Amino acid sequence: MSIDITTLTLEQKASLLSGHDFWTTKSIAEVGIPSIVLTDGPHGIRRQAGDADHLGINDAEPSTCFPPAVAVGSSWDPEVAAQLGAAVGREALAFGVSVVLGPGINIKRSPLCGRNFEYYSEDPLLSGVLGAAHVTAMQEVGPGASVKHFAANNQEHERMRISADIDERTLREIYLPAFERVVKESAPATVMCSYNKVNGVYASHNPWLLTDVLRTDWGFEGAVVSDWGAVSDRVAGVAAGMDLEMPGSGGTTDQQIVDAVRSGALPEIVVDAAVRRVLALTDLPHIATNDFDADAHHALARTLAADSVVLLKNDNAVLPLARVSRLAVIGTFAAEPRFQGGGSSHINPTRTDAALETIRDLALERGATVEHADGFALRDDDANALRAQAVAVAGRSDVAIIFAGLGDQEESEGFDRDSLDLPAAQIAVIREVAAAARRTVVVLSNGGVVSLEGWHDDVDAILEGWLLGQAGGSALADVLFGVVNPSGHLAETIPLRLQDTPSWNNFPGEQGHVRYGEGVMVGYRHYVSAEAPVRYPFGHGLSYTTFVTKDLRVEMTGKDTALVKVTVGNTGDSAGKHVVQVYVATDAGPVRRPLRELRAFAKVSLEPGEERTVELTLDRRSFTYWDIELHQWVVAAGDYSIQVGVDVSTIVAEEAIALAGDVIVRPLTLDSTVGDWFGHPIVGPALQEGLSAGMTEEQLKHAEENPNDLKMVESMPMQQFLAFTGGAFPQETLVQLMALSRLDPASERSPDLELATRGA
Amino acid sequence: MSIDITTLTLEQKASLLSGHDFWTTKSIAEVGIPSIVLTDGPHGIRRQAGDADHLGINDAEPSTCFPPAVAVGSSWDPEVAAQLGAAVGREALAFGVSVVLGPGINIKRSPLCGRNFEYYSEDPLLSGVLGAAHVTAMQEVGPGASVKHFAANNQEHERMRISADIDERTLREIYLPAFERVVKESAPATVMCSYNKVNGVYASHNPWLLTDVLRTDWGFEGAVVSDWGAVSDRVAGVAAGMDLEMPGSGGTTDQQIVDAVRSGALPEIVVDAAVRRVLALTDLPHIATNDFDADAHHALARTLAADSVVLLKNDNAVLPLARVSRLAVIGTFAAEPRFQGGGSSHINPTRTDAALETIRDLALERGATVEHADGFALRDDDANALRAQAVAVAGRSDVAIIFAGLGDQEESEGFDRDSLDLPAAQIAVIREVAAAARRTVVVLSNGGVVSLEGWHDDVDAILEGWLLGQAGGSALADVLFGVVNPSGHLAETIPLRLQDTPSWNNFPGEQGHVRYGEGVMVGYRHYVSAEAPVRYPFGHGLSYTTFVTKDLRVEMTGKDTALVKVTVGNTGDSAGKHVVQVYVATDAGPVRRPLRELRAFAKVSLEPGEERTVELTLDRRSFTYWDIELHQWVVAAGDYSIQVGVDVSTIVAEEAIALAGDVIVRPLTLDSTVGDWFGHPIVGPALQEGLSAGMTEEQLKHAEENPNDLKMVESMPMQQFLAFTGGAFPQETLVQLMALSRLDPASERSPDLELATRGA
Repeated sequence: MSIDITTLTLEQKASLLSGHDFWTTKSIAEVGIPSIVLTDGPHGIRRQAGDADHLGINDAEPSTCFPPAVAVGSSWDPEVAAQLGAAVGREALAFGVSVVLGPGINIKRSPLCGRNFEYYSEDPLLSGVLGAAHVTAMQEVGPGASVKHFAANNQEHERMRISADIDERTLREIYLPAFERVVKESAPATVMCSYNKVNGVYASHNPWLLTDVLRTDWGFEGAVVSDWGAVSDRVAGVAAGMDLEMPGSGGTTDQQIVDAVRSGALPEIVVDAAVRRVLALTDLPHIATNDFDADAHHALARTLAADSVVLLKNDNAVLPLARVSRLAVIGTFAAEPRFQGGGSSHINPTRTDAALETIRDLALERGATVEHADGFALRDDDANALRAQAVAVAGRSDVAIIFAGLGDQEESEGFDRDSLDLPAAQIAVIREVAAAARRTVVVLSNGGVVSLEGWHDDVDAILEGWLLGQAGGSALADVLFGVVNPSGHLAETIPLRLQDTPSWNNFPGEQGHVRYGEGVMVGYRHYVSAEAPVRYPFGHGLSYTTFVTKDLRVEMTGKDTALVKVTVGNTGDSAGKHVVQVYVATDAGPVRRPLRELRAFAKVSLEPGEERTVELTLDRRSFTYWDIELHQWVVAAGDYSIQVGVDVSTIVAEEAIALAGDVIVRPLTLDSTVGDWFGHPIVGPALQEGLSAGMTEEQLKHAEENPNDLKMVESMPMQQFLAFTGGAFPQETLVQLMALSRLDPASERSPDLELATRGA
Repeated sequence: MSIDITTLTLEQKASLLSGHDFWTTKSIAEVGIPSIVLTDGPHGIRRQAGDADHLGINDAEPSTCFPPAVAVGSSWDPEVAAQLGAAVGREALAFGVSVVLGPGINIKRSPLCGRNFEYYSEDPLLSGVLGAAHVTAMQEVGPGASVKHFAANNQEHERMRISADIDERTLREIYLPAFERVVKESAPATVMCSYNKVNGVYASHNPWLLTDVLRTDWGFEGAVVSDWGAVSDRVAGVAAGMDLEMPGSGGTTDQQIVDAVRSGALPEIVVDAAVRRVLALTDLPHIATNDFDADAHHALARTLAADSVVLLKNDNAVLPLARVSRLAVIGTFAAEPRFQGGGSSHINPTRTDAALETIRDLALERGATVEHADGFALRDDDANALRAQAVAVAGRSDVAIIFAGLGDQEESEGFDRDSLDLPAAQIAVIREVAAAARRTVVVLSNGGVVSLEGWHDDVDAILEGWLLGQAGGSALADVLFGVVNPSGHLAETIPLRLQDTPSWNNFPGEQGHVRYGEGVMVGYRHYVSAEAPVRYPFGHGLSYTTFVTKDLRVEMTGKDTALVKVTVGNTGDSAGKHVVQVYVATDAGPVRRPLRELRAFAKVSLEPGEERTVELTLDRRSFTYWDIELHQWVVAAGDYSIQVGVDVSTIVAEEAIALAGDVIVRPLTLDSTVGDWFGHPIVGPALQEGLSAGMTEEQLKHAEENPNDLKMVESMPMQQFLAFTGGAFPQETLVQLMALSRLDPASERSPDLELATRGA
């Protein structure tokens, strides 16, 4: 919409920078500015009909609940994310929603985070690729996205005010790259700032985050919208680049903006820029079409869900269910599926599939019988009786399938868990059923990782279903019977113990601060680097068929870019999808590198006997680290291993390459060591020459005879060396040399300075 | 010395703030100010005779090399530290040294730190008690101490400029308390500032560290002296409280001080205060007596060393050596002992005892034969031949004793290790000798912890000798033969793997920063809290006799102080010393507490059959945590368990107490949550009342019917709540209430404010 904002009063402009009510922006009818609707959510539209509230789960129009991000992450398939994004976009059009709040692409720093079900992965590449696919596909349909929560919102505990204290390298390498990818590849209409502080400054008025990084470094041109109620200092927020405050504040903060402009505290051009970005959102579709194909979307939700299930364990090929005549289906979740998480993303689904129902259908087709027992209650009822009944049913079966998991009361937006355990009643059922049944399969429904300890070895198979959306029940049945071959892989590590998780000691923080003490060693980066045992590694996932990986070739396509070619084949009897995982491993550079990091991946569908050569690109970033001295991405000279893994711990092919690395000349300061000064490619020789020139015969002789003299002081910062020596070099010489050190060494400009050095 | 400093010129005063040369201060003869000598070191006097240099190991006058701090730490005996300190003091008098640079009381954050042999422990209480005993005893003899390195100098890598990035709670609870104890209990003549930066600011000009903490909080009245060459910004250093720069800088920095005073940048009274503190040092003894009893000191060194040896393992009671007829003694270290570390603390010893020699003497007395083989060379020689010879000798013996350890090239001041392993050649010798010998004892000489993995289970006994000083060889022989019953206990954990150490991921840092990401979970605090397995826990140490612990009683002596009474008995056949270790465990308060922390200890000597009741004091600090919001020590209300352990993992008696805790009312800010506001003991009721008064009937009814409304927003910071609600409370009301929140609630002053609240 082309509005000439010069026709607007300051008051009108300020008014556009906050919401009209909970879900809409303000209109200004006289100049033709319409109101638009922003609403949750990431995996389905939560269009509240009646009284709006932030976390209310009622009163929303029925819409399709697609698989939450935890499932999409496990699909490792951008096509899954894209189809989901497009479908959500279509429903948004139906409801007249212009901006859909999602996807959530925060990193899963701890498995305890209550909102992990809304996030994809512990890995920034996987998160970024899936997020970008979702956003691009949805925005092609029409509505704008709001990628969230920017940034470092990795927990629910004290989320409204805790300061995430994170060093710059960790931010750039772990917590920001998914946002960076989505911004650069998909140009989301909006980015949603998070509630928390980042290094002491609220995200909602953090100029480094919202302007320096988001706009200057990444080129974001959309609007920044606040998380609902995230605004602390509105005027500082506008100055920092926080354009649209949601929901409305009844005019209070609008007036603060007006006052700040009038007082000169806030330049009006800053307000104008924010207004332009908010007005651009009115170009998005905002007339409800009142029409979407609920049946088709439900079917799609089933397909996407089935592609996200992770087969963790399958001893004795108990799955897929075949030649089974008596099935025991145990667990409340079989009949009353848990398929979505609590909080702002909670959908009023168009329908709900229970696994039990589809299992009955599929069993009937195969001539098998199904007996069901609740096994446990989500709240303490008669646990012993329920368990005894389940054990009896299991004892009469060929295979017992236990639907276990977490209930709504155990995890949700708004609070973090403090344990990874399944409820004790469920563990008891699993153990006793496994003892009674001939074969036992556990199907899990959970938004955050649960521990498998205490029962893992008792059962034959484990299917990790996460939260799969409204068609999750039938999707699980499809996988159990082999209608769909499971192809999901873990997007997050399943640890042995909570205490083994790298953030354990620093989660969820205390007294207003959470120290990201593990740095870049998040998730698998820690486990593989520290050689710490886990239950199942990142990237793990079984199939009903088998795959082979061969003929890895790495072709350099530039100084620091490469093309990876690898052939994968389906060596089993059924069609299946394989995920090619490419990791890069190096210890080059001045920083501690994770043992290996995911740098490319592709999901490949293969018929039995089929082979395909997959090409994956390793861009420059695949090799870089973030240098906190230079504030830029740097490729360090050294050896890099390109590794293909079936999971992060199981490398099946690798090839080494050597990179020349960036030509880095670090500017010298008085805090640089004497060794840095003498080792500098331009300054070093000049300094040496100048030093020699200023020295007496006797001093030169002494220096030659005592080469260790320099070595002994080479670790001293120049400033200390100056004090220590009583001023070995005059200050003005050093100032000249520091300027020289900032020159590009490639220009090979010979220093023609007259260096003053101290004589005798 | 009472000098009227008003008689000194500014230039004279400035000149007194830096050294005359490497080891002496400047004299001003005309006003009778003498020069004094400061010299290394912590466990013996290194008085350089010829050309002085910082790390030179030659040219020092012979003096007694007492056991380095790593050994003293393992003694768990302040009496050992005191006797050592007094003896070093006597030798200092002999050499005319006024200030002895030591002891080093930094915390062993990582076992890799190259200078760990100069530090006591990973625990601040143990470090502080031993350091205070050393300083008090030495200063009673005459010379002044210089406790070092203040602060957070926990590594050698980049020590001259790295920034130790540490949160305030971790500093106060872990890295500063040993200094605090020594300052408060022993009033050291000087404190030596470290080379490194603390949170970005060099210790040598860090006003928070050198003035706020050291002088204001702790009441330090001595002088701060720089580590040699630590001065970066001299003027900032004087302003920060860094009094004496060492060594001299040829007048350069003195002139900077003069110029800064003249320009008004540095107040002259600040210089005067520094000068007074430096001049006070000239009151210390400074005339060489040229006399100490070298024989007596050597004998003392042997006694102290024997009390520091830790018997880690003693299967089949292989030790003490009794009824042995053929002994094999293997290892270069038996004949050429490694007994001290490299760097500034390196002593030119008055003599050196080799274990082999004393073993021969003691064996002879017992009618046993001794055969020796080198086993390995410290540099790669003919490893196979040496090993084969050792195996042959071991095969002929009843017991093989292998003297293994680290050589000077493997650890020293100036660099950190990157592995915990013994040299591979030694591990091979241990394994093969253990396979060939009937019984195998390993005696270790090492400054930093070495891994026992790969061979621990192959041998019968392990004696951890650390570095024991010049009489260490005979001390080890004394322990092996039972002349002395070992009583040392680990002052630091022996981990299973380097990767298990809590600082592993963040050591030694990168690009100028080392993140103390593990926070307070240093050493055993991590292992016990995370239930992480270790090889030997903190506090572990065996004896040739057995002890019993019983009748624990905890008597409260105040609101938050207690007296612990516990009876210990010697239930074995030989006299021995037992260490009573008292830990406090709690999860009270708003911070993550280590599972337990050492809060008191006592070493008790017991004859066979003897019982004694030991009384240990738990002061207020034993129960506190450092509160970063209040910037003070706080006792949190809750349950505390008083635990007596034979090591940190083995609790043999415990008693629970409940503490009412400090009355804490946190001042409210706009960053406090709505819950905080309504929960505040004074403000909450006032707010509630004011809110109700300002509400309409309808609003009151709505509030009553919707109690969750408050719950939903109670986690919101007030500032966000104000924006969210469009200003629920007027700013002036909140300002009044914030003032009110800072009142002492004990005064129970009723608020008589007219609270303005927003109506409809």
